[in-house]
Amino acid sequence: MTELDTSEKVKLSSTSSPSPSPSSSLPPAWLQNDLVTLFKPDPEPKIAIKQLQLFANQLVHAGFKFKIRLNKPGSLLIFVRASDRLVIDASYQAQVKDWLHGIRTTLPDPPVVKGKLDANLPIAERLRLVHAKLTGALKDQGLGITPARGDWEHVESIFALHDPEFDKAWLKRWSTKWTLDEAELDIIRDSFGEKVGFYFAFLQHYFQWLAIPSILGIISFFFFSPFSIWFAVASCVWSAVFVESWKRKQVDLAVRWRVLGSSALPVERPEFKPAGEIRDAVTGQTVDYYPSWKRVVKQFAAIPIAIVAGALLVALQAFVFVIEIFLAEIYDGPLKQYLVFLPTALLAGLVPTFTAFYNILITRMTEWENHAAKHTFETSITQKLFVLNFLTSYIGLFLSAYVYLPFGHLIAPNLDLITAVAVRLIGERANTTTTASQFTINRFRLRQQYVYFTATAQVINFFVETILPYLKRRLFKEAQKKLQSNHVVIHDVPADNPDEVKFLNRVRAEAEFPDYDVAEDYREMVVQFGYLTMFSAVWPLSYVFSFANNWVELRGDALKISLDERRPIPEKAESIGPWLNNLAFLTWLGSITSASVVVMYAHAGSGDGENNDATGSSLVNVNSWLLLLGVLFSEHVFLVVRYLVRQVFDAFDSTVQQADRKQEYENRAAVIATASNKFNQAEPHEQDDEEDEEEVVRLGKAEVDYGIELLKRTAKANRTEAESSGQASADVKKEL
Amino acid sequence: MTELDTSEKVKLSSTSSPSPSPSSSLPPAWLQNDLVTLFKPDPEPKIAIKQLQLFANQLVHAGFKFKIRLNKPGSLLIFVRASDRLVIDASYQAQVKDWLHGIRTTLPDPPVVKGKLDANLPIAERLRLVHAKLTGALKDQGLGITPARGDWEHVESIFALHDPEFDKAWLKRWSTKWTLDEAELDIIRDSFGEKVGFYFAFLQHYFQWLAIPSILGIISFFFFSPFSIWFAVASCVWSAVFVESWKRKQVDLAVRWRVLGSSALPVERPEFKPAGEIRDAVTGQTVDYYPSWKRVVKQFAAIPIAIVAGALLVALQAFVFVIEIFLAEIYDGPLKQYLVFLPTALLAGLVPTFTAFYNILITRMTEWENHAAKHTFETSITQKLFVLNFLTSYIGLFLSAYVYLPFGHLIAPNLDLITAVAVRLIGERANTTTTASQFTINRFRLRQQYVYFTATAQVINFFVETILPYLKRRLFKEAQKKLQSNHVVIHDVPADNPDEVKFLNRVRAEAEFPDYDVAEDYREMVVQFGYLTMFSAVWPLSYVFSFANNWVELRGDALKISLDERRPIPEKAESIGPWLNNLAFLTWLGSITSASVVVMYAHAGSGDGENNDATGSSLVNVNSWLLLLGVLFSEHVFLVVRYLVRQVFDAFDSTVQQADRKQEYENRAAVIATASNKFNQAEPHEQDDEEDEEEVVRLGKAEVDYGIELLKRTAKANRTEAESSGQASADVKKEL
Repeated sequence: MTELDTSEKVKLSSTSSPSPSPSSSLPPAWLQNDLVTLFKPDPEPKIAIKQLQLFANQLVHAGFKFKIRLNKPGSLLIFVRASDRLVIDASYQAQVKDWLHGIRTTLPDPPVVKGKLDANLPIAERLRLVHAKLTGALKDQGLGITPARGDWEHVESIFALHDPEFDKAWLKRWSTKWTLDEAELDIIRDSFGEKVGFYFAFLQHYFQWLAIPSILGIISFFFFSPFSIWFAVASCVWSAVFVESWKRKQVDLAVRWRVLGSSALPVERPEFKPAGEIRDAVTGQTVDYYPSWKRVVKQFAAIPIAIVAGALLVALQAFVFVIEIFLAEIYDGPLKQYLVFLPTALLAGLVPTFTAFYNILITRMTEWENHAAKHTFETSITQKLFVLNFLTSYIGLFLSAYVYLPFGHLIAPNLDLITAVAVRLIGERANTTTTASQFTINRFRLRQQYVYFTATAQVINFFVETILPYLKRRLFKEAQKKLQSNHVVIHDVPADNPDEVKFLNRVRAEAEFPDYDVAEDYREMVVQFGYLTMFSAVWPLSYVFSFANNWVELRGDALKISLDERRPIPEKAESIGPWLNNLAFLTWLGSITSASVVVMYAHAGSGDGENNDATGSSLVNVNSWLLLLGVLFSEHVFLVVRYLVRQVFDAFDSTVQQADRKQEYENRAAVIATASNKFNQAEPHEQDDEEDEEEVVRLGKAEVDYGIELLKRTAKANRTEAESSGQASADVKKEL
Repeated sequence: MTELDTSEKVKLSSTSSPSPSPSSSLPPAWLQNDLVTLFKPDPEPKIAIKQLQLFANQLVHAGFKFKIRLNKPGSLLIFVRASDRLVIDASYQAQVKDWLHGIRTTLPDPPVVKGKLDANLPIAERLRLVHAKLTGALKDQGLGITPARGDWEHVESIFALHDPEFDKAWLKRWSTKWTLDEAELDIIRDSFGEKVGFYFAFLQHYFQWLAIPSILGIISFFFFSPFSIWFAVASCVWSAVFVESWKRKQVDLAVRWRVLGSSALPVERPEFKPAGEIRDAVTGQTVDYYPSWKRVVKQFAAIPIAIVAGALLVALQAFVFVIEIFLAEIYDGPLKQYLVFLPTALLAGLVPTFTAFYNILITRMTEWENHAAKHTFETSITQKLFVLNFLTSYIGLFLSAYVYLPFGHLIAPNLDLITAVAVRLIGERANTTTTASQFTINRFRLRQQYVYFTATAQVINFFVETILPYLKRRLFKEAQKKLQSNHVVIHDVPADNPDEVKFLNRVRAEAEFPDYDVAEDYREMVVQFGYLTMFSAVWPLSYVFSFANNWVELRGDALKISLDERRPIPEKAESIGPWLNNLAFLTWLGSITSASVVVMYAHAGSGDGENNDATGSSLVNVNSWLLLLGVLFSEHVFLVVRYLVRQVFDAFDSTVQQADRKQEYENRAAVIATASNKFNQAEPHEQDDEEDEEEVVRLGKAEVDYGIELLKRTAKANRTEAESSGQASADVKKEL
């Protein structure tokens, strides 16, 4: 799997080394490097050289081998390779630690086999272990090399190399397969680790589940009226069941991949500043410590900031929205045909600026929270970002659905006033000829926006995300070729060994790639899910487009990871993390927005094109009380449905989890077998009471005889009593 | 702990046995019986005798000893006593089974100690094991004795005997202690099992937590206006935090009592009718099987039945409510002063009848669901009953708050019409003189009802539950004494051995006691919690009364278990079961009702006594839109608060659970210690690569030298480049 394509293989050349001081050329095995360190020195190389020496020293003493090659002038590539012994030990120790913390059910066998690397160790696990060894804290037997931080500011980054042959085969398989089975997910996990594996598993699960509402969406589009209540209900129920089904699937995967509970052994953040040391309550070891309550309080502090940022963003969007209406309907000055693009331009310029600023702010805040674990840090950032993602993605639809369409008619009667104000502000350029009857509300605005977001934007996004990087890559390569041919020759830079040229150029290209961030991909999918679950009543075909998009997305993301971004350093994960909560939140909100949109627009029509808005009445002719009641009803029906779905899921055992329990049971049964052997070998203990068995039987017999006698006698007594009372009642009867 | 009071101790008498066939009298050890079986024969004793012989045979062969005594004519007491060996083995097997299923963290030591009973085995555990042995299925090595069912219809019941000395000490301790600590809960668990233990733990926790809103309630009552929004908010938040805190406490207790996960090994229902056999997915053993989906479908079938029953009950209550208004305001015929009690009498008569009918129906339905485990059967029944408990408890308040007070004013303007109809129906007896202005709404109805439910009714209930049984017991005892002295002598029934008279009379009394049902006690507390969380805004002092009531309740329930009911057969439990869900549901509903009550009545006043209702306007002058908005807002604030509380609880580790994980960790670490010894004894594996350490260091050094050379050269190149470009720009500047 990790071998290179024959075309890429470099021949062994023991002779001819390039000037200057010749290092032996890379043997073919070295092409399967564990990791590459990008080393970026100062222009003044003294400090850099010291750091390089220290780095090399650390590597050698930890049992790593390494080769150094030039990346580009002033920058080195250090190919690092761990000995098999080191990987074997690290793997065994990691497995033992997992077992100690109950993440594995079986104790691993000690690696007594002489020097043979465990054939089952996936490449992702190897990369993860080596990376952990390099970057881990000194107290955890790591080398403490923290790229671009502290003593290691010249270590720009540590990254893993792609395996072109694997990537090629992977892309080929996926582009020719219609569905992806579990085995494919296992392959991804083995190559890129669980964190990336969970993303693809989620995307595949989501893609499959989209088939149901896609079919319903087509039916609804062609056979039901717009804003169909039935489709809205089906969509809500579907989203609730989908989220619950993913919850189950997620745990199943975690069990299958042996990572359930692994977040108890997180990757530590080197930035963590402990407030002191404490004895770990479980392991009894001394560990760094920062009080949880402080972190919780700090996290609460982010709530007002998110609220203010959200309010600012809403205000910004609303402001641009007003400008848009103003330019379209009121303004009649020069450059009108160009100015109509101003709102779009404003949003395109201001929102990213705002987001970037918010990003910096929340990163600082989250750093201030002082997380010890990488994954809780990422979760905390993700949740803060989600607030803004949510607003930037959906606020346009919310404004249209709940402000523009219901209240837009209020502009017409007040048009004279507005125009008068406009004349004051911008003078002659205001269009004073628009009369109330000419003023029109774009009744299709909500649908137009929605179609844009769920169809057009996804196609554009596909180009930006997949096609554009591809073109960029090609252009860049050619540009670089030209540059290199112009450049390297001019100065006194040693040429590459001809056998290595191809390989080194590939590595140099990968060094320029951006790091892969799985959170970006999750964000895209969760935002899409939000469009569907909240507003699909507006345009049922949105499901179909998302279904098609995600088929491509699955392949596009594979392409992106393989060709446009650095190979991710594998990380463990036991779930999709905070995104599950976000999905659940969106389904909940969906039950509210779907209901409100259906109540507001189901009868207002949207396909007949009549212009009844000029009459000055709202497009939304609904009693607000009825609307609120509808929303309240829908939300609670949703909650009840979700509760029932959960009950049903709970009633059925997961086969994967059963298998895991079986494994655990069998382990314990094996222990019992040993223990009971000991037990049986021990002397049989004596009868505890003084009487022997015969005596017990004899006594029992005597007791039963006594009991029978009692029964017979008292039964006779009962009978006598019954007779006498019968006699008595007979006597009484006689007397009467 | 299990020894008897000296005053109760019976002297050993080896001589003088009563006629007929003398069984040896009970030695003192026998007073600590494991269990007593009540044997009720036919009037025709032949079948009964056969069953008795079979029963005795089973006991003897399983290693039980037993003594038979007369209960009353035609009925036997069979004192059953397991050998220590039997108990030790059963205990060991149970612990091993727990360990196999992951309920215990440590494998128990085999009972190799000669015949010595484990001193740590609590009496509850002993009783549970012996009972399980007697009643367990044959395939589980039980004797299959199912009281009053199948082959054992003459075994009326199997029950445990109270320990008067323990009970006495317990009651004395509790009645003199102000608070009950964890040790007291452990004592209850050791005497009555986890199921009862959880009830007392819950009641104690709930009692303690009530202190907070009690203080707030007093403050609110004296310093805030009625229907204070602040108190309502505080009450809602309190209830959310309380439920979450109990969730945590419950898991902690389950860990401490080593029962977490024990519901995976449930007590089987003998009534279970398997549809077939299946290999257990975990243990691989053949087990009885009934498909889950069938049971789920059957459970869903109960929903319409609960809805219909609920609707009927609501209709019944509403009907009685109308009669009440009618009699109070319209009716003026004969017997009016007596007829006003008719509604109360109707409710008192009809509701229990209805409930009893519903009870029979849902018991049948739940039996039809064919549960394999006792606890899922009980949960299913409890949830069905809770629907009715909920309605019978709260419907009166709902009618007053949401129908009578807001819409009562509609009666006055239509009074003429109503009177006319009434005259038609009941002729002259209708009061035709009431005019619209005379018709009054009882504006205090809601508060009066609420005070009754949360204060008066609790006092009454205390009498019914605790004082009444006490009186009944005393009367009954005296009556029985007289009966016995009149009765036993008349017929030919053997007299008791004088040494045993006192003991046997106690046992005979206990045989008459009802079985203890912990669900009844939970129901009472959960219904009380519902009153508080839903309507405490009506009368903040309700918390104080409940706080006081529960102090007494804790002691009263101890009294009840000790003196008025049979000692419960200990059962395992890992939680309070379905009641947690019910609590959570009530807090949720509380966020809605509290908000609505506050919005509706905060300004309508309720303390001034003015009669502004005669004006024909509603007592509740609130925009329904505003009301709905308030409810919606309150509910969502509640959900957000609950979410945050959960996050906070999750952020803090439970010390009990930490201790448990520590134990598990240490077990595994001990295993590792053994394994790593083996590992170390194995040959050290060789260096995997051909080069030795020196070679690695040498190669590393060479590589670093090469790297340094590269750096220096390219840094120079960089510098040259920078200089030349600097030169170039200088040149450009010069040229300009």
